[in-house]
Amino acid sequence: MNFSSNKEDLLNALQVVQRAVSLKNPLPILSGIKFEAGESGVIISATDLELGISCSFQAEVFTAGQAVLPAKVITELIRRIPDVPIFFKADPVNGSVTVQYGQSEANINGYPVEEFPDFPLPAGDIKFSVQGEDLRELIRQVLFATAKDENRPLYTGVLFEIVSSDINVVATDTHRLAWRKISLDKTGDININLIIPGKTLNELARVTGSSDLPVEITAAENQVIFNAGDVCLVSRLIGGNFPNYRQVIPKEYISRIRLKARDLAESSERAALLTREGSPIIKINISDNSLVVSVNTEAGRVREEMPVFQEGENLQFAFNARYLNDALKAIGTEEVVLEFTGPLSPVILKPVGEMEYLSLLLPVRLREES
Amino acid sequence: MNFSSNKEDLLNALQVVQRAVSLKNPLPILSGIKFEAGESGVIISATDLELGISCSFQAEVFTAGQAVLPAKVITELIRRIPDVPIFFKADPVNGSVTVQYGQSEANINGYPVEEFPDFPLPAGDIKFSVQGEDLRELIRQVLFATAKDENRPLYTGVLFEIVSSDINVVATDTHRLAWRKISLDKTGDININLIIPGKTLNELARVTGSSDLPVEITAAENQVIFNAGDVCLVSRLIGGNFPNYRQVIPKEYISRIRLKARDLAESSERAALLTREGSPIIKINISDNSLVVSVNTEAGRVREEMPVFQEGENLQFAFNARYLNDALKAIGTEEVVLEFTGPLSPVILKPVGEMEYLSLLLPVRLREES
Repeated sequence: MNFSSNKEDLLNALQVVQRAVSLKNPLPILSGIKFEAGESGVIISATDLELGISCSFQAEVFTAGQAVLPAKVITELIRRIPDVPIFFKADPVNGSVTVQYGQSEANINGYPVEEFPDFPLPAGDIKFSVQGEDLRELIRQVLFATAKDENRPLYTGVLFEIVSSDINVVATDTHRLAWRKISLDKTGDININLIIPGKTLNELARVTGSSDLPVEITAAENQVIFNAGDVCLVSRLIGGNFPNYRQVIPKEYISRIRLKARDLAESSERAALLTREGSPIIKINISDNSLVVSVNTEAGRVREEMPVFQEGENLQFAFNARYLNDALKAIGTEEVVLEFTGPLSPVILKPVGEMEYLSLLLPVRLREES
Repeated sequence: MNFSSNKEDLLNALQVVQRAVSLKNPLPILSGIKFEAGESGVIISATDLELGISCSFQAEVFTAGQAVLPAKVITELIRRIPDVPIFFKADPVNGSVTVQYGQSEANINGYPVEEFPDFPLPAGDIKFSVQGEDLRELIRQVLFATAKDENRPLYTGVLFEIVSSDINVVATDTHRLAWRKISLDKTGDININLIIPGKTLNELARVTGSSDLPVEITAAENQVIFNAGDVCLVSRLIGGNFPNYRQVIPKEYISRIRLKARDLAESSERAALLTREGSPIIKINISDNSLVVSVNTEAGRVREEMPVFQEGENLQFAFNARYLNDALKAIGTEEVVLEFTGPLSPVILKPVGEMEYLSLLLPVRLREES
């Protein structure tokens, strides 16, 4: 392997694949980044066996070949090199790579290339594509509702339910649920449920940055592949049956309010300051076109009042302030509608606009009042 | 206590005194901030018993009085309040404070004011002042050489040796030493050694921000007081005799080079990437107007070469790369001069310019070569 590149392209690619490098894994090879130089340029890749990321970049290849270098050393070295042409030359015998820059050079010992796990790119029949910006928005809108607890793997994933040309995207940790529907450009005859790890979607949103290129999604047996320009992510899928989300979304409401999402988010954040850590429970009272956020704890009391547009009954609830804030921040429009079916039934939050999005939040039962 | 203020002034003052709040101390009162409203405005203060910071700010005082509020709650609340007038009203009976903002209010339970430790402001005879910018520069130039190990308290401090109108400022952790000399505007008859905790100077540099107001320094029995505009820091002094720094600074050299500080800093940072964590030892070889930084470890090899202006003998050294970098970054001029008296004697780093500054660094003894 023998190629030259420039700092910016190389560093950018290293930072992208870095996200899949496994630093905790006992297999040392997984802390490496694989370089593959071929006729069409250089591709680098990393994997933690659950998620793999590869990225190609501009390079002049003199000799094809492969090498695996420790991710931290090569990334930090390139980050610290001045903006000069950089030459990579691999020693095919011992696997080390000499990096030349200006008057200087570093010779980095590598890992045996054959130990690097295969980067499986299964050919899948099921293909569809989503604009990068749309994909990042829907990820942002549902990801907060996934469970963080790895003991419940199903809930750490996001359901992509594809029915002909629509995708229902759903996440829930059983305390809350977020649902978003988007339409695919090409109407197809696809009918499949994919449960994609939340971590994969988080990394996908990061590595596609602000690019609005279409992201091509290919579903295979147990895997999903995302192709976005120079970057490719491969992830395992989560097995199991995602809960039937349709039956938990209330169809009717007894009360409905409309207000600025940010006002309620800020009020509930302030009120939560006086709650105990780990239990940020705030009360919300709705009556006569007015909403009151309140907290009364050992640390003190807060009372914040704001005008709302109200339809239906007066009501009182208690919420986990953090959950309420997550939901309000994901709304994506200035105004939000909240629909209530009763003090202990899930509350629905919807944007004011055309978007097919909602999230659902279970109130908390208060000891002193029903 | 009853006053009104605006968000910006209040938040700024809270962020300043926050630096002295003790979150780990078992005394709960030390996690509080004391408010004192009087005729001349409002002063807030915090202390961890070693360092105290107070700050006054613009406020309209309706009733004088005092209160102590939990630092985290009041700071985070003010940070999250919109930019509206804020009213503070203390309940003299239970010590709670009602904070009113817009249509909302928070009532925060306080600590008993009488439990808050006295903020001693001893009157000292010894007073001098230094421009804020000069003070921050000299702190930056010596602070890196203090010891972090609290078991050697003397070395965690910085010596201010005042002889008539000059101050020698010195720090050392016994592996390296930094010395800076500045002249005071007013010639006086002051003759005193102060050992000021490094942490105090670090906080002083932070809380005086970018202000170039003169900082008035008052030395008392065991304490030092810094007055800078609205802000006042009080710190204990460290007792003991600071080592005689003059006798460790070599007076002569056998070899001397001049080069760009940044070139050497960047080279040694890159070379250190291939060293073992915790032992970032790099070699430096000087011969014939050329300096070579090299490393040869299990992880690989680096060799970087740069031109230098050389006087005297060729030499080879080994350094702790982190220590070398700290010293190079503190230089403050584009070019640096290094003076050597032998492969195991301390090396002197000096700026190229008028500044009376130097730092001194002990080389590392290499096993394989002398």
